[in-house]
Amino acid sequence: MAPLPSYDDVVDAAQLLNGEAVITPLVESKAVNAQLGCRLLLKAEMLQRGGSFKFRGAYNYLSRLSAADKKRGVITFSSGNLAQGIALAALALGVPATIVMPMDAPAIKIANTRRAGAEVVLYDRRKETREALTPRLAAERDLIYDDPHEQRDMLIGYGTAGLEIAVQAESVGAALDMMLVPCSGGSLVGGCALGIARRFPDAAVYGVEPESFDDTVRSFAAGHLVSNDMTARSICDGLLAVQPGEMPFALNRTLLAGILSVSDAEVMRAMALAFQEYKLVVEPSGAVALAAVLAGKIDRSGKTIAVVCSGGSVDAAMFTNALATLQ
Amino acid sequence: MAPLPSYDDVVDAAQLLNGEAVITPLVESKAVNAQLGCRLLLKAEMLQRGGSFKFRGAYNYLSRLSAADKKRGVITFSSGNLAQGIALAALALGVPATIVMPMDAPAIKIANTRRAGAEVVLYDRRKETREALTPRLAAERDLIYDDPHEQRDMLIGYGTAGLEIAVQAESVGAALDMMLVPCSGGSLVGGCALGIARRFPDAAVYGVEPESFDDTVRSFAAGHLVSNDMTARSICDGLLAVQPGEMPFALNRTLLAGILSVSDAEVMRAMALAFQEYKLVVEPSGAVALAAVLAGKIDRSGKTIAVVCSGGSVDAAMFTNALATLQ
Repeated sequence: MAPLPSYDDVVDAAQLLNGEAVITPLVESKAVNAQLGCRLLLKAEMLQRGGSFKFRGAYNYLSRLSAADKKRGVITFSSGNLAQGIALAALALGVPATIVMPMDAPAIKIANTRRAGAEVVLYDRRKETREALTPRLAAERDLIYDDPHEQRDMLIGYGTAGLEIAVQAESVGAALDMMLVPCSGGSLVGGCALGIARRFPDAAVYGVEPESFDDTVRSFAAGHLVSNDMTARSICDGLLAVQPGEMPFALNRTLLAGILSVSDAEVMRAMALAFQEYKLVVEPSGAVALAAVLAGKIDRSGKTIAVVCSGGSVDAAMFTNALATLQ
Repeated sequence: MAPLPSYDDVVDAAQLLNGEAVITPLVESKAVNAQLGCRLLLKAEMLQRGGSFKFRGAYNYLSRLSAADKKRGVITFSSGNLAQGIALAALALGVPATIVMPMDAPAIKIANTRRAGAEVVLYDRRKETREALTPRLAAERDLIYDDPHEQRDMLIGYGTAGLEIAVQAESVGAALDMMLVPCSGGSLVGGCALGIARRFPDAAVYGVEPESFDDTVRSFAAGHLVSNDMTARSICDGLLAVQPGEMPFALNRTLLAGILSVSDAEVMRAMALAFQEYKLVVEPSGAVALAAVLAGKIDRSGKTIAVVCSGGSVDAAMFTNALATLQ
């Protein structure tokens, strides 16, 4: 088995991503800081190419394929941000990309993925699962397929967001006490924890999940992987993994201070605050870490806290609902 | 009379603002570029301190007051972004600031201005005008009052946004053919035109106004200052100057390629595009330059175009209306 990803791997990825990924800003509002009694730094990953952190991982992953594998091309499944990230990175690197999407995915997401240059294969959710279909198509079409939740180079690429946070925080004289990061399979939070480890080794890093999909909370408690009830509902459509990835879970057990969870209502209020105070569009899944700070899930008093706002793929109807919490 | 502001003045201001103002990102979407057939670069000034470009001018202005005047303090009128900019800059510099606001201004704007540390004086719009009240209060209270539309150091401070655009465009290999900037009194567009003048002397710079407040369009045509019909309406609440400032008008006649205007409906569509494609919150006044490009007010084909999105102070109800244009 490959060794667990390291800080040095993240530094290598950052060099590779230089000039390709956006160095997204770390934004701050003194008004919010005063209101919350802490110093809050938001990593604005919705400003990343493709609208989320996924491009970082996709580009690092695809860059490191062998020349032969790059020529064969890759396949993955996603109805959201990963599709955009893979499609854009594949286009930049000249790698053919195929994305498996449900035929009832929003038309705009399918169009965006095609617009980014990927081939889209639609399937009928009532007739087959994407977990079964994708490897079968990979075999039939001789394409590379890797489970994104177990893909080492993706996690490492995501870690460049953490590395940037550390560098940017240092440059504004902020010594991080804590960092909160959205958590689905666990690769983003694991990567980000690595990314800040050299500059802020004592910072407490937390993953944040929707409360109805708190598999990582329960897996930490149990000491082994446990699954979500997939009949549950959450507005956080990007954080609905069945269970933590094995590889990120092994890493996160060594790096994280804990896992928190937030309700949909808390997430909506965080989206509204991001609109009002930071002028940023955050999708529900992207707002869970901010929601955890606002809702007081950690003791924020006097602390310097980074939160990753991981993406901005939200439709007008959902965003309008979130804004309605301001009235 | 003081000489008109110059490029070198803007460079000086940028040094002064270093570490105080945010170097806001210049964002780009390859998808939008492909759709519009041009290369579009958005200057994200809603991410500036106080949510708009005003902090740049306010800080440069207040910094250059004499020690005695700094101690006396300043007064200005604003129900919007200038209030925030002056209040935050005054707080940073230890200058007492008084802001005159109508008593029927949104409570949130009054609260934000107080929260930023300024004294707010409320007045009754049915009984007096702010243009009369503010100089009277300045005399009574021995405070500095300068008309913001004629304030040289404010225009120069705004110009640092243009300088950043030029540096950032160069760093991503973009040679600007055009720049479009919101226009009210004319200081922002004049400052930005100065800011790019050294690196992109041939770029065509346009101011953009709401079509019902197109005083600069008509003043350019007439060759002298003409006023707006102040009974007209526009959703662009930050662009409702009575007429161009004399000082910026003199400068803009030497620097600008022309003035464009856009309708409220075009502005709403631009706000919606900024939400969907750039994940940014733009207020109506801040979106006019983007609206002009989208609506084809210039020949954008094959061009590299910078637009300044000047602020993000928009309430949930207005933003919701803008998002409704997506359906």
